[in-house]
Amino acid sequence: MMETRISNANQEVIIGGGRPTVLIGERINPTGRKKLAETMRSGDLDAVRRDAVAQVKAGAAVIDVNAGVPGVNEVELFPKVVQVVMEAVDVPLSLDSPNPEALTAALKVYKGKPLINSVTGEESSMQTVLPLAKEYGAAVVALLQGDGGIAPDPEGRVAVARKLIDRADSIGIPIEDLVFDCMAMTLGADHKAATVTLETMRRLRDEYGVNLVLGASNVSFGLPDRDTINNIFIVLTIEAGATCLITNASLVRSSVLATDLVLGRDEYAARYISGYRKRIKEHESNQVA
Amino acid sequence: MMETRISNANQEVIIGGGRPTVLIGERINPTGRKKLAETMRSGDLDAVRRDAVAQVKAGAAVIDVNAGVPGVNEVELFPKVVQVVMEAVDVPLSLDSPNPEALTAALKVYKGKPLINSVTGEESSMQTVLPLAKEYGAAVVALLQGDGGIAPDPEGRVAVARKLIDRADSIGIPIEDLVFDCMAMTLGADHKAATVTLETMRRLRDEYGVNLVLGASNVSFGLPDRDTINNIFIVLTIEAGATCLITNASLVRSSVLATDLVLGRDEYAARYISGYRKRIKEHESNQVA
Repeated sequence: MMETRISNANQEVIIGGGRPTVLIGERINPTGRKKLAETMRSGDLDAVRRDAVAQVKAGAAVIDVNAGVPGVNEVELFPKVVQVVMEAVDVPLSLDSPNPEALTAALKVYKGKPLINSVTGEESSMQTVLPLAKEYGAAVVALLQGDGGIAPDPEGRVAVARKLIDRADSIGIPIEDLVFDCMAMTLGADHKAATVTLETMRRLRDEYGVNLVLGASNVSFGLPDRDTINNIFIVLTIEAGATCLITNASLVRSSVLATDLVLGRDEYAARYISGYRKRIKEHESNQVA
Repeated sequence: MMETRISNANQEVIIGGGRPTVLIGERINPTGRKKLAETMRSGDLDAVRRDAVAQVKAGAAVIDVNAGVPGVNEVELFPKVVQVVMEAVDVPLSLDSPNPEALTAALKVYKGKPLINSVTGEESSMQTVLPLAKEYGAAVVALLQGDGGIAPDPEGRVAVARKLIDRADSIGIPIEDLVFDCMAMTLGADHKAATVTLETMRRLRDEYGVNLVLGASNVSFGLPDRDTINNIFIVLTIEAGATCLITNASLVRSSVLATDLVLGRDEYAARYISGYRKRIKEHESNQVA
């Protein structure tokens, strides 16, 4: 099993190699969060700071940072937000933007080896994002979406992964710096949507041993009680090879700890029990406050 | 994938064959339920009746019945309890007793094809329980525990399964009438305990296509927040091949519906959505009451 290493100025986080699942906290994203978008637009980054601290407290080992606020110049805002999060928490960051100029501006201020979120298998994306990852020595989330869209079957998605691996290799990015997202579509539209994702994950794990990530909340879109579906899907993705998750850490932390435990990755149940004690303690201090 | 059929006087329940997970409600068991044991000892079977109805309402398609009350003659009590449950709910029963005389007495009053819970791979158990299953045409839960105890590895457990399959075959019990329990030990004592179970399940599923059941609550013994661990383990056992679960239906119902959905066994998410609506309705009627 491969190891993907990312870092900030002070520490390294290793994804994979049989380690427990790494949570990449995804709350710093104005998409669908109106209030956060408004404060970010006004230049007030206090909420960003608080969210970053809360995600790390909830168990996130990496923070995903997105500054795509409609009507705001992302090239200016993104590096500022990255700077604020770097100062607020001592963990590596995932730089989340589809805008190559904004990414470049963030990569320039970032200290350490970040995760870029994301490249796709589309020609234009590979041509812009992979050279950036190479230049700044970053790892990168690779979405299995090609010029023909998202393949409906595992074969098609694995073919896109192969293309990404080859292209990365051709410009000197090692395979262990790619973390693949096998794309979860909603079960509301197709009841086989999740099994295609899980099967793609197993194939990539077994054939390449690469690290796999998932943004898991799409899967429940349009269905009731989405948290239950998301949590169950997360359990199954970890079994199928996900070594990290881009997600709200506080919503999934206890499921993920229990999954690592059941899958034999938590000797003496040490992480599970310590996570449980922490939760009890927080609950008690919330009741006092 | 094999189909195991059990029935009561009016209807058949089919386990396996790609169908959604069958819940076998396990609340009718005085072990560890002091109050229930007391009422059963006094001959009051109202609580039994209520529990059976509640389990079916919570989604159990089969009810497990155990009448092992210390100090009470099980040979007399067991058929009475079975009779009461047969009258209370219109679903097949799992007859749960280690006592061959009590089992025989229950089999005599039972109407339909029950599930016997259980035979083990121990010589004495195979010699008493398998002929009973044959004589009464019952299906039977087969625990993968041999004369040497519970094997620490999948190879050892699969060997016990093979022995049980051969022995059953030799007296005319077809393989589809065996439902295997791959034995979950506690993670508190050994952090690889669950992975051994899951690996055994996958091998039996892939090699024999047999139906698999699990009594899943052992796995969390001695650990905090047992419900979280049990629910996660259940998700993973279903992925590994469990087609039915002996469990408290009301505790696991929504996890199991979501797991079936994510694993592509619920077209149009119909069962998931209807389960959700039922839960909301119950919640509302509880608030009114």
